[in-house]
Amino acid sequence: MGALVGPAVAGHPRIAALYERDQTCQTLGIALDEVSAGRALMRMRVTASMVNGHGMAHGGYLFLLADAAFSYACNSYGPVTVAQAAQVTFLAPAAVGDELVAEAVERVRSGRTGIYDVTVRQAGGKTAGKAVAEFRGQSVILAGKPLGD
Amino acid sequence: MGALVGPAVAGHPRIAALYERDQTCQTLGIALDEVSAGRALMRMRVTASMVNGHGMAHGGYLFLLADAAFSYACNSYGPVTVAQAAQVTFLAPAAVGDELVAEAVERVRSGRTGIYDVTVRQAGGKTAGKAVAEFRGQSVILAGKPLGD
Amino acid sequence: MGALVGPAVAGHPRIAALYERDQTCQTLGIALDEVSAGRALMRMRVTASMVNGHGMAHGGYLFLLADAAFSYACNSYGPVTVAQAAQVTFLAPAAVGDELVAEAVERVRSGRTGIYDVTVRQAGGKTAGKAVAEFRGQSVILAGKPLGD
Amino acid sequence: MGALVGPAVAGHPRIAALYERDQTCQTLGIALDEVSAGRALMRMRVTASMVNGHGMAHGGYLFLLADAAFSYACNSYGPVTVAQAAQVTFLAPAAVGDELVAEAVERVRSGRTGIYDVTVRQAGGKTAGKAVAEFRGQSVILAGKPLGD
Repeated sequence: MGALVGPAVAGHPRIAALYERDQTCQTLGIALDEVSAGRALMRMRVTASMVNGHGMAHGGYLFLLADAAFSYACNSYGPVTVAQAAQVTFLAPAAVGDELVAEAVERVRSGRTGIYDVTVRQAGGKTAGKAVAEFRGQSVILAGKPLGD
Repeated sequence: MGALVGPAVAGHPRIAALYERDQTCQTLGIALDEVSAGRALMRMRVTASMVNGHGMAHGGYLFLLADAAFSYACNSYGPVTVAQAAQVTFLAPAAVGDELVAEAVERVRSGRTGIYDVTVRQAGGKTAGKAVAEFRGQSVILAGKPLGD
Repeated sequence: MGALVGPAVAGHPRIAALYERDQTCQTLGIALDEVSAGRALMRMRVTASMVNGHGMAHGGYLFLLADAAFSYACNSYGPVTVAQAAQVTFLAPAAVGDELVAEAVERVRSGRTGIYDVTVRQAGGKTAGKAVAEFRGQSVILAGKPLGD
Repeated sequence: MGALVGPAVAGHPRIAALYERDQTCQTLGIALDEVSAGRALMRMRVTASMVNGHGMAHGGYLFLLADAAFSYACNSYGPVTVAQAAQVTFLAPAAVGDELVAEAVERVRSGRTGIYDVTVRQAGGKTAGKAVAEFRGQSVILAGKPLGD
């Protein structure tokens, strides 16, 4: 399913392999458009199976998209890194058919811990660029498990 | 798909209808076991399509399960209520096949805002009862949109 | 300044010593009413030097009170434990003269990490019991530094 | 105590007045170095009365400094704005004598809500620029209470 991975990932075999095994993103059609040191850009289209009982995109999927971008950003350095905690603020609803982009940017690294900020935005249409959610994740490097580039 | 709804929901037609329209929970097989004023209990089995590149349950799905339970707890009173913000701490990984339960309990309501705590636990097996994630959500009642019981 | 420490602390010499060195609580008159395994109760009166430009108690002091109670609760077990992260929601303003109590209760411990919930309430007057702020703290045990009871 | 206010505040009489009434910042010697639309820079020296029982700067004061900068940034536009919630991650300890700066920057505004990020750093010495804490605040504009410039 390499079609989900943008050309920018071509030079990152470790990340490409991580993405290949990422059944969550593969199944939901979450594309990895860009990845570089401490940064990742992912893209998801809201489908009919992603709505809640109020008919809006489920907040869980907005979080998941941000969390996925966060994960690729903090694993961009090599060592296996996982989310320890995260906070999200929902700013606007999203609807079926909306295409959303999540851009994760590293804010700080300190020892084994890092902080990454992710903004989820509308990718197109009349509301292109509008922020849907703001996410902040706290990462931690797992001991002794470098992925080995 | 009423099979996903426990008998305890029978007396809550508004919640049952909300759940019927909830394509996220229906599609992922997230069952609504119990609901009462300010409280909800939901259940999800981790499937092979819910893992991340490290082979563990994606944190996004752990959050989504907690967020879903939070949503039913804060909508238990009637008015349409949505998540404004949430914070999650991941305590232990979950694996394919694990059955997880999320119990959402109201902590406080103040004006249009509420705070709900959700614990996600292993439901069975050797680690039954073990906490996987702790979630706190901040809800807000949308103006002028009572669901009308 | 032992007057700030309630009789319940008498049996906890290590905590009493920690409190003696706690210049923040001593200076602000924050009393340690109770402490036990994973739990602490502290008390603070809002003074004229604790207001912000809007004339209300500064949110920073509401957080500080909660954070102090959190600290005694997570240090109640022995090893030196510090706050790694915290989240606070402000529910109602507090005014000069208000007496506030903060009750910290352990939610979960997992490895070196713990989660503690703290509610800050009005202690007396017409609004006694009213929640002013809800706080959740994530603690971490520092390596190799038991306080030695 | 105008000495605590930098020259950059001269052109903001409303902010200057807000700061004059801010007994928290006045009492603690927290200076307001800069303020502009959606941004503020504040400065605090850790004193002997700001330590906890472990001898480090109390996390409550690190939060308070960040919260103060957040407050001036979100009140820079005019309407009375208060903190609704905040999250902080502590990255490194601070000691008595350390001078700390907190820079608050608006991340997004949406309706009555805003999100502001604040970094607290060491201002000088061998560790100048080192991040001590990262803070994110969620603000809300109070109804019908413009400060009136």
